[in-house]
Amino acid sequence: MEKTYFLGIDGGGSKCKARLEDADGNFLGEYVSGPANPMRDYELAMTSLKDVIAGVFATANLNIDNAANTHAVMGLAGLNIPCCLTKMSQWQHPFATLQLTTDLHIACVGAHERTSGAIVIIGTGSSGLVCEEGRQLEYGGHGFSLGDKGSGAWFGAESIRYALETIDKLQPSSRFTVKLIESLDCQSAQNIVEVFAQASPAQFAQYAPLLFDYADLKDPVAVKIVKEGSLYINQLCQQLLQKKPQGLSLIGGLSDKVAPWLTPEIQAQITPALNSPEVGAVLIARQQQALEKNNQHSHLNSQQKTGTPIPDNK
Amino acid sequence: MEKTYFLGIDGGGSKCKARLEDADGNFLGEYVSGPANPMRDYELAMTSLKDVIAGVFATANLNIDNAANTHAVMGLAGLNIPCCLTKMSQWQHPFATLQLTTDLHIACVGAHERTSGAIVIIGTGSSGLVCEEGRQLEYGGHGFSLGDKGSGAWFGAESIRYALETIDKLQPSSRFTVKLIESLDCQSAQNIVEVFAQASPAQFAQYAPLLFDYADLKDPVAVKIVKEGSLYINQLCQQLLQKKPQGLSLIGGLSDKVAPWLTPEIQAQITPALNSPEVGAVLIARQQQALEKNNQHSHLNSQQKTGTPIPDNK
Repeated sequence: MEKTYFLGIDGGGSKCKARLEDADGNFLGEYVSGPANPMRDYELAMTSLKDVIAGVFATANLNIDNAANTHAVMGLAGLNIPCCLTKMSQWQHPFATLQLTTDLHIACVGAHERTSGAIVIIGTGSSGLVCEEGRQLEYGGHGFSLGDKGSGAWFGAESIRYALETIDKLQPSSRFTVKLIESLDCQSAQNIVEVFAQASPAQFAQYAPLLFDYADLKDPVAVKIVKEGSLYINQLCQQLLQKKPQGLSLIGGLSDKVAPWLTPEIQAQITPALNSPEVGAVLIARQQQALEKNNQHSHLNSQQKTGTPIPDNK
Repeated sequence: MEKTYFLGIDGGGSKCKARLEDADGNFLGEYVSGPANPMRDYELAMTSLKDVIAGVFATANLNIDNAANTHAVMGLAGLNIPCCLTKMSQWQHPFATLQLTTDLHIACVGAHERTSGAIVIIGTGSSGLVCEEGRQLEYGGHGFSLGDKGSGAWFGAESIRYALETIDKLQPSSRFTVKLIESLDCQSAQNIVEVFAQASPAQFAQYAPLLFDYADLKDPVAVKIVKEGSLYINQLCQQLLQKKPQGLSLIGGLSDKVAPWLTPEIQAQITPALNSPEVGAVLIARQQQALEKNNQHSHLNSQQKTGTPIPDNK
């Protein structure tokens, strides 16, 4: 009999990560590839996803043909947007089953090892989710141009915007803005605009760590920007906690940097994530498969499932 | 002998406008076409420019072949960015001469009827310029993604960002945010993101008048956003006035809306623009031609001029 595999993929604005397990829960391999936010750039996301799938099977020394006996769950940034989910759902994927959901959903299941709880992602983008009794309430996640405040992209872009205002002498400069302008490696304000006007969220997010380094050194400009973004994340956490979730975790590359800037009340209620988002995706794949088997035994409909409910509105 | 014509074109993020005069200064026609910010969208800008040129000759009942005896000056948003100016300079234009410069430069010459003075443009984008002794000092104009605070696009986008936060209950709503969400004609926050994530600055700028209407009615959210953008414009004016220009004028579709929100000190120093930017462009074309003729008489180099000096850094 053919072996069955479980694949979890976590995709965001800067990278995607895949994890492969066998039916007994043994870890077989993991792999990292490029950005996979199909709302932002569908072609790039598909390239990254195909790359990460090929990579994780290769790492596990398995032929890619085994995708046909693999149950996959992909949690991607941007899949909260209906048109984006619709487009992704049309993909002629190679898997036995594929469930598409949001990066928030898999992160929440991974963090709490169950389907209830709350999570805030602070990576290239920012967003929050409460899962309760099968219902998902989503906050933020409006993307780089319309929101994602307190995210890596927002912190980076806000820093560059501020730096441009210091060049115009409309804002006081600081050690941080001087250092930032140096690191941008541009000759003038016009040159910064040339280089960064069309920059991706991931490119802006690269400057967030420098901002936090200077905020830790009490640089007034860095502190101002960090406080503004952190205030938004704090409000997001408050909103989630009002729903009384079974635990709130912060996830994403910037969560450790932002956490110390939240109010003590919020910090006290944050619990560490038990698992990473891609582990959460594998958990969902296993749960779904267990459910399908159960349904088969009950002679119920056992058709291949390729979609996931959209989170409810609040 | 062939007649000589002078053409001035003002191009910005929402539209471009052309004005045609004969050698005696008689007005022959004007024409308006689409967006012409080649930094934002080069192909669209070229389409709009070709359209406005054809349109203005047609309006003046002149064959387009007369472009060959026409001295043209185009002042376009985005031409402060070196790569953009370089690209535009490669255009095989149909004119006797073509001088490329910024929308700021032609607006400044038009407003003050001379080559010294200061100007702030508040249209789809925002920026400031001081012209003094042949030197141009430019402020702002960093484009939608990195600046243009206090511009139509910024006011519109900031309003939509705020409205999304009210849907998430992260900010209090107001009559303005309710009305704005209604006018967006979207079913949910996700739908707003779908529709507006890739919207152009001109699309966002459409919502600025609604914002100012509600700010006039003392709507707290509208007042907050208007005050923040106007503070930036005020700082821009202060910076320009420090250079002691011979006059400061506000130009652009939103200037009348923003002016009442500036401090009384700044308002007292603003003088109305004497002419529109496209008139300024025609003035520059005439001055340039007078200079060339003078040079010809002095047996100096009289080669066709197709570039303009980049504004100095501050």
